Amino acid sequence: MLRWCFLLCCTPLLFAQTDEIRAMMQKSQDNWNRGDLAAFAADYEDSPDTTFVGKTVTKGGTAAILARYQSHYPNREAMGALLFSELSVRVLTPDLVLATGKYSLARAAAAGGDASGRFTLVIRKTPKGWKIIHDHTS
Amino acid sequence: MLRWCFLLCCTPLLFAQTDEIRAMMQKSQDNWNRGDLAAFAADYEDSPDTTFVGKTVTKGGTAAILARYQSHYPNREAMGALLFSELSVRVLTPDLVLATGKYSLARAAAAGGDASGRFTLVIRKTPKGWKIIHDHTS
Repeated sequence: MLRWCFLLCCTPLLFAQTDEIRAMMQKSQDNWNRGDLAAFAADYEDSPDTTFVGKTVTKGGTAAILARYQSHYPNREAMGALLFSELSVRVLTPDLVLATGKYSLARAAAAGGDASGRFTLVIRKTPKGWKIIHDHTS
Repeated sequence: MLRWCFLLCCTPLLFAQTDEIRAMMQKSQDNWNRGDLAAFAADYEDSPDTTFVGKTVTKGGTAAILARYQSHYPNREAMGALLFSELSVRVLTPDLVLATGKYSLARAAAAGGDASGRFTLVIRKTPKGWKIIHDHTS
């Protein structure tokens, strides 16, 4: 009975979280496609514990995350046009979600050509809104 | 004051969680190096929501996870000798941790040669112990 009450009470909340994360990812994609890497990096939690795992590991706040993106994408051409797809959001707790999906970069051959891969994000609700505390992109 | 009480009370718990996850990873490595893929796959939660992101995505319980490993590592030679390193454990809630690290496979050239990469695991405390609910390995 309690479990049903929990489900009835919390289901709208879970949907709300999923909608918020989807909106966040759309905004993130828009920030990238506007060439605004600083806004893109601001979606990460500005904490020394924030981690980004790619071929190498970056640990640190938004400045460290931004520096990583700037080194990989030094100009607008290298950034290309970003599309997130296959987004899946799993609510772990009311304040914590796991988001997975695919990214695709449409890019001129001279700028590195098209690229794509998969990401796992752990996103936490903070006083400043939902923030990525861990990113594994491959 | 409350924050200090929380830290004082919970710090031993956080250390305990970290120790448990480290022990789990050691056991997982031992299972692999004994050639016991079924025991290795049993560390994943047997739930239709469990996900494994690699080059492709697998979603499903331990049978699906085991089938994935069996297709990639069809025999003892292909499995090689596994070493986990650079393990980092971040406690998200008392029942949820984020573990990241590196895996290295020492393997004969004929069996595919050495391989290595990085993993992100989301691990949840369940009635059956700590279980991996999401794995992103690249």
